[in-house]
Amino acid sequence: MAQPQVSYVNTTLKKNSFLDRKRQIVWEHTLLHQLELLKKTGRYDAFRLQWHPSYSDPPDHWPVPNHLFWDSDVGKWIEAACYFLHDRKNSVIEDAIHELVEMIRSAQKEDGYLNIHFSVVAPEERFTNLEHLHELYNAGHLIEAAVAHHQVFKNDRLLEPLVKYVKLIAAKIGPETGKLHGYPGHPEIEIALIRLHQVTKNPEHLALAQYFIEERGAIRDGKHFFAAEAEARGWHPFQRPSYYPKPQSFWYNQSHKTILEQDSVEGHSVRAMYLLTAVAALDKYRVERKQEYRDALVRLWDNMVSKKMYINGGVGAIADWEGFSIDYFLPQGTDEGGCYAETCAAIGVMMLAERMLQIDLNGKYSDIMELCLFNSVLCCMSTDGKRFTYVNQLASSEGKPARFEPWFTCACCPPSLSRTLGFLTGYLRTTNVDHDANTAHISVHIPAAGTTTLKVNNETVTLDIDSDYPLSGTINFTLHSPSSVSTTLAIRIPPWASSNFTISPLPIPLRQETSYLHLPPSYLLSTPTFTLTLPMRPRFLAPHPATTTARRTLALARGPMVYCLEDVDNTWVCDHFRSLRLDAGRARVRFVGQRGGAGGAQGEEEDEEEEVAVAPNGERVRELTFVPFYFRGNREGRGQMRVGIGRM
Amino acid sequence: MAQPQVSYVNTTLKKNSFLDRKRQIVWEHTLLHQLELLKKTGRYDAFRLQWHPSYSDPPDHWPVPNHLFWDSDVGKWIEAACYFLHDRKNSVIEDAIHELVEMIRSAQKEDGYLNIHFSVVAPEERFTNLEHLHELYNAGHLIEAAVAHHQVFKNDRLLEPLVKYVKLIAAKIGPETGKLHGYPGHPEIEIALIRLHQVTKNPEHLALAQYFIEERGAIRDGKHFFAAEAEARGWHPFQRPSYYPKPQSFWYNQSHKTILEQDSVEGHSVRAMYLLTAVAALDKYRVERKQEYRDALVRLWDNMVSKKMYINGGVGAIADWEGFSIDYFLPQGTDEGGCYAETCAAIGVMMLAERMLQIDLNGKYSDIMELCLFNSVLCCMSTDGKRFTYVNQLASSEGKPARFEPWFTCACCPPSLSRTLGFLTGYLRTTNVDHDANTAHISVHIPAAGTTTLKVNNETVTLDIDSDYPLSGTINFTLHSPSSVSTTLAIRIPPWASSNFTISPLPIPLRQETSYLHLPPSYLLSTPTFTLTLPMRPRFLAPHPATTTARRTLALARGPMVYCLEDVDNTWVCDHFRSLRLDAGRARVRFVGQRGGAGGAQGEEEDEEEEVAVAPNGERVRELTFVPFYFRGNREGRGQMRVGIGRM
Repeated sequence: MAQPQVSYVNTTLKKNSFLDRKRQIVWEHTLLHQLELLKKTGRYDAFRLQWHPSYSDPPDHWPVPNHLFWDSDVGKWIEAACYFLHDRKNSVIEDAIHELVEMIRSAQKEDGYLNIHFSVVAPEERFTNLEHLHELYNAGHLIEAAVAHHQVFKNDRLLEPLVKYVKLIAAKIGPETGKLHGYPGHPEIEIALIRLHQVTKNPEHLALAQYFIEERGAIRDGKHFFAAEAEARGWHPFQRPSYYPKPQSFWYNQSHKTILEQDSVEGHSVRAMYLLTAVAALDKYRVERKQEYRDALVRLWDNMVSKKMYINGGVGAIADWEGFSIDYFLPQGTDEGGCYAETCAAIGVMMLAERMLQIDLNGKYSDIMELCLFNSVLCCMSTDGKRFTYVNQLASSEGKPARFEPWFTCACCPPSLSRTLGFLTGYLRTTNVDHDANTAHISVHIPAAGTTTLKVNNETVTLDIDSDYPLSGTINFTLHSPSSVSTTLAIRIPPWASSNFTISPLPIPLRQETSYLHLPPSYLLSTPTFTLTLPMRPRFLAPHPATTTARRTLALARGPMVYCLEDVDNTWVCDHFRSLRLDAGRARVRFVGQRGGAGGAQGEEEDEEEEVAVAPNGERVRELTFVPFYFRGNREGRGQMRVGIGRM
Repeated sequence: MAQPQVSYVNTTLKKNSFLDRKRQIVWEHTLLHQLELLKKTGRYDAFRLQWHPSYSDPPDHWPVPNHLFWDSDVGKWIEAACYFLHDRKNSVIEDAIHELVEMIRSAQKEDGYLNIHFSVVAPEERFTNLEHLHELYNAGHLIEAAVAHHQVFKNDRLLEPLVKYVKLIAAKIGPETGKLHGYPGHPEIEIALIRLHQVTKNPEHLALAQYFIEERGAIRDGKHFFAAEAEARGWHPFQRPSYYPKPQSFWYNQSHKTILEQDSVEGHSVRAMYLLTAVAALDKYRVERKQEYRDALVRLWDNMVSKKMYINGGVGAIADWEGFSIDYFLPQGTDEGGCYAETCAAIGVMMLAERMLQIDLNGKYSDIMELCLFNSVLCCMSTDGKRFTYVNQLASSEGKPARFEPWFTCACCPPSLSRTLGFLTGYLRTTNVDHDANTAHISVHIPAAGTTTLKVNNETVTLDIDSDYPLSGTINFTLHSPSSVSTTLAIRIPPWASSNFTISPLPIPLRQETSYLHLPPSYLLSTPTFTLTLPMRPRFLAPHPATTTARRTLALARGPMVYCLEDVDNTWVCDHFRSLRLDAGRARVRFVGQRGGAGGAQGEEEDEEEEVAVAPNGERVRELTFVPFYFRGNREGRGQMRVGIGRM
């Protein structure tokens, strides 16, 4: 039940397999590229606490200074790099980490305070605007960096100042009289504190996370904390940040009600995912109201997945508040009324799904985790690992091409991608070992090729998975488990293969529960090698019929991959495929296969599908060429792209 | 080419005909009811310039005080009442008008200033916030009241103070150095000044209207007027009113560009309609850039009608700014992403359409004028004339029932309805007389029953139209035109009858242009009595296929009327007809007819249609009962209603 940021070390990807190539790009290019950008933009040196000219820039989103996130940008880069350093070396990266860690240490104030903006620009404003100014969010990302740093370097150089900072925060905020009864506008520190507790075992770290979660949305003395805080700052009652549709739009940061009172997922989607991930991560420590919090998690998850999620796992229809709209409102692009689908939000869905799986091993979570990985997370980085997306619309429109960017003023997404790929294998498998009972269990959520290794007392259990997944559905399993260890496997059967998968040799009886195939020691002892086949027939996906924003559309999918049309392949397009109509009855999908084979990082670029006999508005088009959505935007084109195609 | 507020006196409705009953309700009930509410809420006495407790209320929409519109509420009521007093008497109404007029006179400051809020609450803020504080908007409505008052009472008691006030405004605002180079945030005074000029013939009144129109959106010394004005007020650069999605969202009030530069209709829909109505009304006085302004009007009209208008003529999809969304974004209700369709906006579309018809006699304008009258204006008042709607969604949803309200904090809509019905006949016919040439022309835009009378020198021309229109399509015309007068008629053929209308006796040749049938003196002299038949087959309307928000829907229509489903008739409904699916292939519409006949104001309540063989989600429904949309909300029900029904 370890966090995936810890358990990932148990699984290594097969060299040059699909996901390994993605991860390798981050190691070889992205981390160094992002390091350069940290240096070039001033972030790298910011913990020296000198003035930077950009600190005077007018904010893009008042009242949030553009540089407010710099602490977290640095923290996330350190964290990401540390995950890779588990089994490889790079002196440029390591030297940078060490220098940054020393800078962070030197930036800490006597009392433990540690934040760039509030040390250099606005020292008098500490802890006066938890709602908008990301003070605790930044602390959270530095804590997560410290935990990852401690894990790989086995020292306390970064952990020590963060533990000290947390002590200060706990002295300022909490249930006791005289403290602020507050919580962060942007959740994140809750996740970080739970992870910190796993290292420090300090119950105060867990208690502070729990306080932030349980206090959120409470009314004290007739007032909401953020309202009281704004009043104390002297804000005009109608003053509101650029991202609040109305004054006191507390749903924006999920504090409009306590978590237990919420029954639909609202507001900024990254904040919602981070908050719920923390709630789920707290589950195993929770004694009181455990079931109530579980019910809230399931309720909010179900609302999101069934009514507020795009067909590719993206969430957040509304750019103005970077978040959720009403149920079933899922326009594909700006000219249809919205679509945000932020990179960090899709990463957050994966984080939440992973924690939910620890509570309930159910395909309803891992199906979505996989959907996000292949279709709303991997799409956020170019094949060269040096360009990124922040917003991931399902259809381009005039002025909104499907394009990558090298960096962003608010650069949360690129380092989040790096860290996700850093501990990626933690999402693919979950492992449990009981040394007392001499048992081992491996849940295979995503059967990408790789090896999972577990130590059970003095014995070693390994599970090798060989496959070209997600490009093909033939998956060979080889388990090495000494007879003294009782090993069980649970293997997810994806919904698109649930009616026609095969496993050979066939386990009798075939026990399948909540989308997982359960293989007991009796089968595995006699059958250490077996093959699972998940047929990947191309298929069309339609949005939920209650969706109000999608004209009747179809999206092509194959296996776990959702496809899209791009102008590069369909050069005649001039309206972003808006008027195109697919004749579903006549359409025939011909799978051409991987022309590039498995050679090199660009291999998957060639994985195209062709669609025959289709008619758009006016002229007839005899052939449409689709590419996987994760691959869109990688070739020189006009940025015209669409996932859901109108049907006749 | 007179304004409809003047020309309406030429046409009287047939007693107890459909529209006469509507107008009669306003005379018998609505005006007196609204007068009572003016008194009860404090508006009636507000021109006494005493403090009212509500002046301290926090604003519903910061920074606009709730009482800011009171001047206009009083002005619009006076204006509405005056239109009725043309041919009838009521001492209660007349006494109130006289008392109000004397109060208004007494409220005028020495220098001519005349405004409740800026006299009682904020005298030091005069002319410092044209963008948000409706100072010129209120002046406009008082001017329109004064013009209507002058027209019926033939005295200057109200005109005089308003002319004086306009003189002050023109001394403060204008192109000259030392004046504010500004214009109102809410257009209205432009229309009023053009009407005032028609009475006073003072060229300064026309020039001020023209200045407001042409200055709008201009950049002077690198600054937008509203930006400069906000800066002068000391506003924080990121401060913004509750209805601006972003700071400086000047598109909200159509000042983001000059009118000539605008190519799509944006922002608050009432403001847009009032502005464009003024631009169209100025056309006949314009010498320079006449064609450019006409092109802008046509461009913006076409954008609105083809891409931003609901199937019933409603406009404005977004509640937050009470206005237009992007092209083809037309959700039917809140749970589909919006729908505002404000009463005043539909009235504004009629106003604009009427002025456009004076520039170009084209069915593209009168078709929409009629659509709005029967389906998005008449729907805004209950059958008893005492309850109103502000927002007119095409589908109800949880928390948003289809219901009337007795009054509103911002009470713009109810008196606007009263005044629209006051001069309603000005929309039905347009008349032109040339005394020198001894010619008369009548354009019949809407063939509701009534008599139009024109004086041509000493002769009288009358056109009698007898019909049950809009309830039936048989229309009998009788023209009395002395042979000395050369009379022509133009009769609009609605689009739903364009292919199957008949006229008997048949004119040879049949000259039909831009949806109007043109009847020359040669035909009319020999055929003073003729019958036009516009077959009213029930039909289904579908939204434009590019509409992004409507699932495939169908709406029932018959003649000019659009229908809806209500829970009162379809009692099984529990989800606002959201999941209902109409089988268009099997649906058969049986027209039951008017059970109530023409007796009394409620007669049209019984005009129902039944729809047979329809299947919703799950269960089969054998019969659906539709009622005209204008009638929705009039019976005790749960407020569940829908116009566009999902199709299978």
